[in-house]
Amino acid sequence: MGIIGGEVSVVNLGLEAFAESLRQQGAKVVHVDWRPPAGGDPEKIKLLYSLERDEVDEANRGGVGRILKSQPVLVDVQPALKAIPGMRGDLFLHSGPPVTWDRMCGPMRGAMIGAVLLEGLEDSPEGAERRLRSGDISFEPCHDHSAVGPMAGVISPSMPVFVVENKALGNRAYSNINEGFGKVLRFGAYGPEVIKRLKWMEETLAPALAAGIREAGGIDLRGIMARALHMGDECHNRNVAATSIFARTFMPHLLHAGLPNSVAEEVAKYLSETDHFFLNLSMAACKATMDSLAGLKGSSLVTAMTRNGTEFGLRVAGTGGEWFTAPAPIVKGLYFPGFKDEDANPDLGDSSITETAGIGGFAMAAAPAIVQFVGGSPQEALEYTREMYEITVARNPNFTIPFLNFEGTPTGIDVRRVIATGISPIINTGIAHREPGIGQIGAGLTRAPIECFEKALKRLAEELG
Amino acid sequence: MGIIGGEVSVVNLGLEAFAESLRQQGAKVVHVDWRPPAGGDPEKIKLLYSLERDEVDEANRGGVGRILKSQPVLVDVQPALKAIPGMRGDLFLHSGPPVTWDRMCGPMRGAMIGAVLLEGLEDSPEGAERRLRSGDISFEPCHDHSAVGPMAGVISPSMPVFVVENKALGNRAYSNINEGFGKVLRFGAYGPEVIKRLKWMEETLAPALAAGIREAGGIDLRGIMARALHMGDECHNRNVAATSIFARTFMPHLLHAGLPNSVAEEVAKYLSETDHFFLNLSMAACKATMDSLAGLKGSSLVTAMTRNGTEFGLRVAGTGGEWFTAPAPIVKGLYFPGFKDEDANPDLGDSSITETAGIGGFAMAAAPAIVQFVGGSPQEALEYTREMYEITVARNPNFTIPFLNFEGTPTGIDVRRVIATGISPIINTGIAHREPGIGQIGAGLTRAPIECFEKALKRLAEELG
Repeated sequence: MGIIGGEVSVVNLGLEAFAESLRQQGAKVVHVDWRPPAGGDPEKIKLLYSLERDEVDEANRGGVGRILKSQPVLVDVQPALKAIPGMRGDLFLHSGPPVTWDRMCGPMRGAMIGAVLLEGLEDSPEGAERRLRSGDISFEPCHDHSAVGPMAGVISPSMPVFVVENKALGNRAYSNINEGFGKVLRFGAYGPEVIKRLKWMEETLAPALAAGIREAGGIDLRGIMARALHMGDECHNRNVAATSIFARTFMPHLLHAGLPNSVAEEVAKYLSETDHFFLNLSMAACKATMDSLAGLKGSSLVTAMTRNGTEFGLRVAGTGGEWFTAPAPIVKGLYFPGFKDEDANPDLGDSSITETAGIGGFAMAAAPAIVQFVGGSPQEALEYTREMYEITVARNPNFTIPFLNFEGTPTGIDVRRVIATGISPIINTGIAHREPGIGQIGAGLTRAPIECFEKALKRLAEELG
Repeated sequence: MGIIGGEVSVVNLGLEAFAESLRQQGAKVVHVDWRPPAGGDPEKIKLLYSLERDEVDEANRGGVGRILKSQPVLVDVQPALKAIPGMRGDLFLHSGPPVTWDRMCGPMRGAMIGAVLLEGLEDSPEGAERRLRSGDISFEPCHDHSAVGPMAGVISPSMPVFVVENKALGNRAYSNINEGFGKVLRFGAYGPEVIKRLKWMEETLAPALAAGIREAGGIDLRGIMARALHMGDECHNRNVAATSIFARTFMPHLLHAGLPNSVAEEVAKYLSETDHFFLNLSMAACKATMDSLAGLKGSSLVTAMTRNGTEFGLRVAGTGGEWFTAPAPIVKGLYFPGFKDEDANPDLGDSSITETAGIGGFAMAAAPAIVQFVGGSPQEALEYTREMYEITVARNPNFTIPFLNFEGTPTGIDVRRVIATGISPIINTGIAHREPGIGQIGAGLTRAPIECFEKALKRLAEELG
């Protein structure tokens, strides 16, 4: 005390241990919880500094404006070959960034086998696998064709897809149709019952949905999502409210379309049994929204986060179609009876387009009951949303969260903020068995790999000189 | 300090001001937030003391057991005259405790006029009013006939009613069918469009619903309510989730019933437009539940809280059919544009059977978005539920609230606890215009009058000697 003289009052920044030690010695201490940006890494701080400029902020404001303005409307159901730009007879789309057969994960291989059988190119799984190895069929990401698919995300030419138009900005996005629970292609199952259901979807469900949608003059998806967020959905792993609203809104139009009564009944039954029906629409709506800022010069906003089960891929508005990749992360989750960690495939699917657009894991505060499915507590669900405000640049007034006093969902992930805070986007997700042919074994939570954001930051800095 | 000697340590009960004053004088104080039961009223404390006995606790445990065991299932739709026990051609049922024409509130008079027109007994509102005054028609509470109706709750002989059976305990309950929003009978409107809609409901909707319900082999209401509580409904003033689940579950059965396509379409359209459709089912389910403990000797549990717009009426298990009444309270709420406090009728309707059964206002923690309709904040919605745990004897494991860590809804209102704590049951409700013929003007919150509970407590003490 002799050196300083008199009473000591301290403002302590950073490490709380110093504050505690001073308090024990009787000093008055105000502690400020502060950490150096990017964990104090000099190279990253330099990159961040080079990107702290009006040009980027302005581009991001423009990007967010497009997100908030977007009005995704379901306008049709058509075969992929007809609807999706650049689709070809020998092209199979898949989730995540690009991947070759030899690096493809088990469930995606299973789904590819199922797609070959569905297309009638081969009669047996063995034959299908041979053909897939042979190079006869090309593989490209859904994301490269304005499309998205949950889990394996396989879309083959004959599969029907939802056509979603962003009415405010004119672009379109596509997604396949949800098969329901149990043994399903998207989780890598390809048995006869899987193919039979896909055939039914192609021949009966899709034309009926198309007729009803046309009869309705299109169906506003943003409105359904906004209501569902007030009804316990976050529109990624909880879709029961959105599906129920859709079914209830859609049925009068379907019944007005003049289809045979038995077809209407089959569709009503399918809608009543398929709680995740709306997931694929939510995804297409988010894709139509986020594509509207793809290639936006100077913007550090994320336009796609997606996983092929082998790698995680990130796209940023200012760097257009370039993929920033890292190994797909492990999912921490709840398993169905009989399954465990070792059975799980790493993170898989395009469904993280929902988090990219500010819902899904980002809106878990709206969906406390989801923790029964993905794990954690309702309090943690609130915290995830609060945390995501740290890395986003806006709150979406179209999508509000009752329990946060109707605050908007955290929207517009800024790569700079992710690096500065070290907070990685939260994603909730289904878990597929790592072997082909089995299917879903659980659901849980994961984080986007920070490595992808580091790569993107660097590239963006180069881009802007 | 001289008198006491040494250091003073204090445990302070009750008034915090004493603790504060001692703290200021340097004494160590632990404050216990305690209030004397029943606000310290000696007479009430004596009554409470006389009812603090095993016999009552045991009766209440039995009563709660019946509530938790109840399994309300929608089994049919039939005309009131056919379905409701004791219904007669010259009998009109209404909400709340008994009331005569001269004391009837405006919206209930309006609904009675509409019912006379619907039954074809008169051609004009003036004629209808004359007949209602004449004594030709008898008025009795729905509650006296195992029935409930929202707001005016008027059920006339030809009206179709839901038949809900408590499968676990065998008793049945009845409710009319929801007319939707706008000008509706239950809020006292009786114009030609109101009568026309009621006719359509009788001739088209009711037989179709009946056919679908039979096709489904009955519809489990408890399951729908449990799911809806995870989807932002509290099943009184928010029913959009329950209605959507019902519609989605019901449509395949309706379509399987072999009705003309145009009828199915009309029903689908009605279900898609009527967000409060499920309210009447929720009410009948709660009535079927709470009737199962009516007359349970020694029990201090509430079996009915209801309002006729003039008086509030309370029934308690141990005192059977006896009504304990007080003037109907004013509702504090949000008004539709153009309306204000002075236009509002006092509290009205049987729909507080939902709160009686532990949902509605008691489950507002499950329905934060409801505050946009009834006022208050999501935080207050949580607090209402927490407060209701103070006056109830159980938490219902069938109805859980995600944001309270899946705690069960506060169930089994104990008259003793209401008097001891001074906490009156919270009720959320629609607000009717006080004049007949106008309709709904808002929604809000109110409390059951404590006077009814005081009367019930006294009576119960007499009963038990």
